[in-house]
Amino acid sequence: MDLREIYQNIDKYLNHEITLKGWIRRQRKQKEFGFIDFSDGTCFKHMQVVYDKSTQNFEKIDAFKHGSAICVVGTLVKSEGAGQDYEIKATSITLEGDCSDDYPLQPKQHSREFLREIGYLRPRANLFQAVFRVRSVAAMAIHTYFQERGYVYLHAPLITASDCEGAGEMFQVTTLDLDRVASSGKVDYSKDFFGKHAALTVSGQLQGETFAMAFKNIYTFGPTFRAENSNTKTHASEFWMIEPEMAFCDLSGLMDIEEDMLKFVVKYVLDHAKDEMEFFDKFVENGLLEKLNKLVTSKFTRITHEEVISILKKADVEWEFTPEYGEDIAKEHEKYITEYFNGPVFITDWPKDIKAFYMKQNPDGKTVAAVDLEVPGAGELMGGSQREEDYDKLVTRMEEMKVPTEDMQWYLNLRRFGGCVHSGFGMGFERLLIYLTGVENIRDVIPYPRTPGNCEF
Amino acid sequence: MDLREIYQNIDKYLNHEITLKGWIRRQRKQKEFGFIDFSDGTCFKHMQVVYDKSTQNFEKIDAFKHGSAICVVGTLVKSEGAGQDYEIKATSITLEGDCSDDYPLQPKQHSREFLREIGYLRPRANLFQAVFRVRSVAAMAIHTYFQERGYVYLHAPLITASDCEGAGEMFQVTTLDLDRVASSGKVDYSKDFFGKHAALTVSGQLQGETFAMAFKNIYTFGPTFRAENSNTKTHASEFWMIEPEMAFCDLSGLMDIEEDMLKFVVKYVLDHAKDEMEFFDKFVENGLLEKLNKLVTSKFTRITHEEVISILKKADVEWEFTPEYGEDIAKEHEKYITEYFNGPVFITDWPKDIKAFYMKQNPDGKTVAAVDLEVPGAGELMGGSQREEDYDKLVTRMEEMKVPTEDMQWYLNLRRFGGCVHSGFGMGFERLLIYLTGVENIRDVIPYPRTPGNCEF
Repeated sequence: MDLREIYQNIDKYLNHEITLKGWIRRQRKQKEFGFIDFSDGTCFKHMQVVYDKSTQNFEKIDAFKHGSAICVVGTLVKSEGAGQDYEIKATSITLEGDCSDDYPLQPKQHSREFLREIGYLRPRANLFQAVFRVRSVAAMAIHTYFQERGYVYLHAPLITASDCEGAGEMFQVTTLDLDRVASSGKVDYSKDFFGKHAALTVSGQLQGETFAMAFKNIYTFGPTFRAENSNTKTHASEFWMIEPEMAFCDLSGLMDIEEDMLKFVVKYVLDHAKDEMEFFDKFVENGLLEKLNKLVTSKFTRITHEEVISILKKADVEWEFTPEYGEDIAKEHEKYITEYFNGPVFITDWPKDIKAFYMKQNPDGKTVAAVDLEVPGAGELMGGSQREEDYDKLVTRMEEMKVPTEDMQWYLNLRRFGGCVHSGFGMGFERLLIYLTGVENIRDVIPYPRTPGNCEF
Repeated sequence: MDLREIYQNIDKYLNHEITLKGWIRRQRKQKEFGFIDFSDGTCFKHMQVVYDKSTQNFEKIDAFKHGSAICVVGTLVKSEGAGQDYEIKATSITLEGDCSDDYPLQPKQHSREFLREIGYLRPRANLFQAVFRVRSVAAMAIHTYFQERGYVYLHAPLITASDCEGAGEMFQVTTLDLDRVASSGKVDYSKDFFGKHAALTVSGQLQGETFAMAFKNIYTFGPTFRAENSNTKTHASEFWMIEPEMAFCDLSGLMDIEEDMLKFVVKYVLDHAKDEMEFFDKFVENGLLEKLNKLVTSKFTRITHEEVISILKKADVEWEFTPEYGEDIAKEHEKYITEYFNGPVFITDWPKDIKAFYMKQNPDGKTVAAVDLEVPGAGELMGGSQREEDYDKLVTRMEEMKVPTEDMQWYLNLRRFGGCVHSGFGMGFERLLIYLTGVENIRDVIPYPRTPGNCEF
């Protein structure tokens, strides 16, 4: 039986005998009785287990250490103590698995840095019980949103031989024996597994477009990789991305979908991880629930990059980076703009030279139909664009931007074979989680984070 | 508007004007009128569009080529023709995107080999419309099954520095410049991205166990990699695996879950991809629906490996491989056993020397608490085991099998820190899809398959 099941059906189990297996999170022993803070990991809530001399095994229970796995048989009753509404009056508590004295996870507050070092144990700590359950719930929210609307879920390939976007920041994938490469003095890709240079993908978008031209609406949700040597709070080498792509959808339709999806996911998580979200609100980011509840009911602002620069220029602020037409905006600008509009802001029509080759060129010759969504407190959460559907314009732009076209003929051909107006966006799943939980460091929302110099467990 | 929406609510749209955007799959032109076989990819069914001289643009429509993207405005009416119940009487048809004459996907039956070569176009072909929609639906079935039961979805890491299982069959991941390795004559892993040798994972199980010790019930669903140089119908270098792991669950409980999950997923797919499954039954595997419907209601047999060998030895069959106690069984044996029991068979308690180090050792000293599920027509679909929870036994077994223990201390520690009886299994997602669709080659159930020498698109 799961604790989750008990809490969801308290009335059904109240005053009945139940059997639970889980772990001792903490124990308070008195002479004649004792309390166990019990959790089985199936819900955020714990359960207090009370035992006394009438409990079988009483003498032994005292010696059970925190962290141990136990089986509890007892009656679920209303608790008269403070701090909990219900408790289990145990008739027997037996040891399922002992815990050694050198158990590093003590019943006290550990630093997040220390918990990262014991990454294989940290999911047992309250914070990570909440983080990783929310990660799971948010993943389901995303699948639910798209599947209910008929989108086809695409598993984009992870190993790729093309490197249109991430040149220089990709991990190479090889079965060549590096010692042999060193001793032979040459690299022979004809001997490599795929017969050529291969790497880990930085995006599934291009393959996503091929599927959108077949299924109209599709989404990817899978890992992507970046071999960027940055040790910051927001960079990881391996992370999960959601990349929907919609045929017959323009920039305005794209924003409708982004807004609708984000609200759906936030609401789903608030509904399905109530205890966890209250915990974050209380102990991680004050005002988190208010922020998220507000998002769900707000109307997102839509404004062009040019208008944003005008607002920034007029602002009575001493900028570290001076806002300029035709240039990217900085974190401080993002922050100002979401505060200025007091909510999420879609910034559209970006200068073409700071954006990717595949974005649709606007008639002005200067901007592209790209859109970034900025949210209060987290900056850019999604980036998307209408795609250039004109073959000639796309080729010209690729040549201008020195994107090799040889290996990309299949991608270009999409424009020749029934291509149409289409749009898509990408959302970093961890960025969403940081926004949802208030946990600031990407290392703390990924089960086993990979960063420069770090590949543990 | 989506075709899927129309077909789900025919009564609502009948005799109403509707607007659809999608593609011409085929066109039949007469002098005074014409028919377009229209699809927008949102459902398996197409829609017949009828146009005549009263349709705006009539002269131009004749010139639209198959494969082109169009916008159709017209009235949904009952069809008097054979072959379809409904059709759209078009008031206007406009071109959204032309299709070149060299479009390789002609409205005829292409070989699967040819379709693999144009992998970026094949999702538009009927077979792959069905395959990849079923892939999407089956993925959702798996998430739904586990999430409804409170399992936590774990994204296990893809890049790993440990190679406990797949030594020799792993892809190396590196940012070392191979040309420089060749010219310098040495491999310096301290300069590599993670400061050491890293590779793509072959399984998320070990990390899964760490999460099961925190959340009780967890599952992974993500890509795994195998650098095996086999060019067979069932091997791919990149594929998706589902690996659930349950604390306080023994071998018998594990089989209950495997059986329940498989029945759920099959039923879900039959319910949610009716048209696609009927297509497979008709054109890919005769009797598919009967096979799957039978599975849903059957009781799976449970039998030990030893009993299986006894049955095989008694069988009046000339085996290519002689069945032997203590040895693995061959494909021909798997086939015989599922036919013998006329349904799915769990084979338990395998000889320990042909199984992995982490499996629970049975008291007989010869076997482990492992289980393979064999299904009629597809062989092994899942493999699982109870895990060895005894620290000393696990260490001894690892040493016997020459599994390095240094990097695995965290995994071993799970047994010292509140470890308990636990079990898990793995299911290859593509193997499930092959079983569900009748499509035999793994290359045809993966959007962009990676195999030795092949890494296209």
